[in-house]
Amino acid sequence: MKPVRNIRLDLAFDGTAYHGWQMQKELPTVQGTLRAAIRKVTGEQVDLIGSGRTDAGTHARAYVANFRTAGAIPPAGLARALNGILPPDIRVMSAREVPLGFHARRDARSKVYRYQVYLGPVLPPHLAREWFHYPRPLNLEKMRRAAELFQGTHDFASFAAADAAAKRSSRGTVRTIFRCRLAAKGRRVTFTVEGNGFLHHMVRNMMGTLIEVGCGRMGLREFRALFGKRDRRLAGFTAPACGLALVKVRYGRVPRPAKA
Amino acid sequence: MKPVRNIRLDLAFDGTAYHGWQMQKELPTVQGTLRAAIRKVTGEQVDLIGSGRTDAGTHARAYVANFRTAGAIPPAGLARALNGILPPDIRVMSAREVPLGFHARRDARSKVYRYQVYLGPVLPPHLAREWFHYPRPLNLEKMRRAAELFQGTHDFASFAAADAAAKRSSRGTVRTIFRCRLAAKGRRVTFTVEGNGFLHHMVRNMMGTLIEVGCGRMGLREFRALFGKRDRRLAGFTAPACGLALVKVRYGRVPRPAKA
Repeated sequence: MKPVRNIRLDLAFDGTAYHGWQMQKELPTVQGTLRAAIRKVTGEQVDLIGSGRTDAGTHARAYVANFRTAGAIPPAGLARALNGILPPDIRVMSAREVPLGFHARRDARSKVYRYQVYLGPVLPPHLAREWFHYPRPLNLEKMRRAAELFQGTHDFASFAAADAAAKRSSRGTVRTIFRCRLAAKGRRVTFTVEGNGFLHHMVRNMMGTLIEVGCGRMGLREFRALFGKRDRRLAGFTAPACGLALVKVRYGRVPRPAKA
Repeated sequence: MKPVRNIRLDLAFDGTAYHGWQMQKELPTVQGTLRAAIRKVTGEQVDLIGSGRTDAGTHARAYVANFRTAGAIPPAGLARALNGILPPDIRVMSAREVPLGFHARRDARSKVYRYQVYLGPVLPPHLAREWFHYPRPLNLEKMRRAAELFQGTHDFASFAAADAAAKRSSRGTVRTIFRCRLAAKGRRVTFTVEGNGFLHHMVRNMMGTLIEVGCGRMGLREFRALFGKRDRRLAGFTAPACGLALVKVRYGRVPRPAKA
């Protein structure tokens, strides 16, 4: 029997054309596209493990996946071969052999997401794929103060999609946000959040709620109360998927939670 | 008779889906798409003047066009109405009334183009539309020295597409390059060039020739001799259109030419 190796892939993808990471029947997904490419290169139907689901249309600069293979092809050659088959909107940025026990989802200690909002009156075409266009003024100082309140360990039920399975799971809807930052540069606003896990639509709902604060529809007192209410209907709208990107998955030490 | 007004449009477009600016029968072009949108808004078949041709697949951050209209719609309303009709890869960034004599092409004193090259082994998907992927090492110092030699007034016949009508025009193939700069930031190389005019494929041929210098296929002495040879076959390859963008058209004072 051939020795089995565990291969870690670091991926980047433009999610515009995909229904998220997770394989679905008859819909293009990143996992399905990548698994088909791996099959062509190795001849194997692998169990392709990803670091987590992503929403349809959401991007990734650094998604992590792994799979076991009996094939002997060196990781660098595998990456080159996969990039030769994959469409240009999915790239294997690097491939390497990792210990057999490594599991891209279970071992992930934290994830960093970034949400981009463009405030100018007209969205320049080169930003159209990765920026949400919100052409009205926002009170960024108020949004910054609200964003800081996300930090720490909270019940995020108000920020989870109504369908979220998490509400019934043992882990529930409690998550820890290690850091949360809102930065503005001219008309470009970037929201960065790192946490030990995210519920379905959670980052997009956090962003939508921050925008409600920024445009004056929600006060900080009301915002603060959302954690206790556990009611999705009370938080803000779900910001569109195109503005969201997974930018890092951490497997080492987790950062120390910032004080809320 | 209604008074005629002259409207200046400042445009941005992602050129991926277009066969350049200039209208062509049965091919999608930026001019054709914009003129059809103007017709819908004003009811007029206008003479839409652009600051110059652009290659198929080339982008613009700041293209300038103008047209005369008898319509009374205010420029800001016109911009909004056009953006409501145009596809998202063409945007009217601003519209304003200008003196009747203003002519987007004839009055242009200089244009600034930018060419982007990505040197890393794998091109990240978010750069795929606007960066040329050249995954081999380049001697950037040598390229910088060559780029400086473009500055000044030269005969650019060696850098013009073989079909260039300019070779037979009164202005010929002599152009003045006001400034030329090669900047590198990690794996990203940006070539910026400002001149009083550019021949067909000229910036892409300049870039291709700089790459030949950077990869060692052409020496600086050979490079310097290209201006005197007037032979397209001696210069470098035509770098792909996707890396090129028009970033500015200047109508005021022209910069003082830097010394070569």
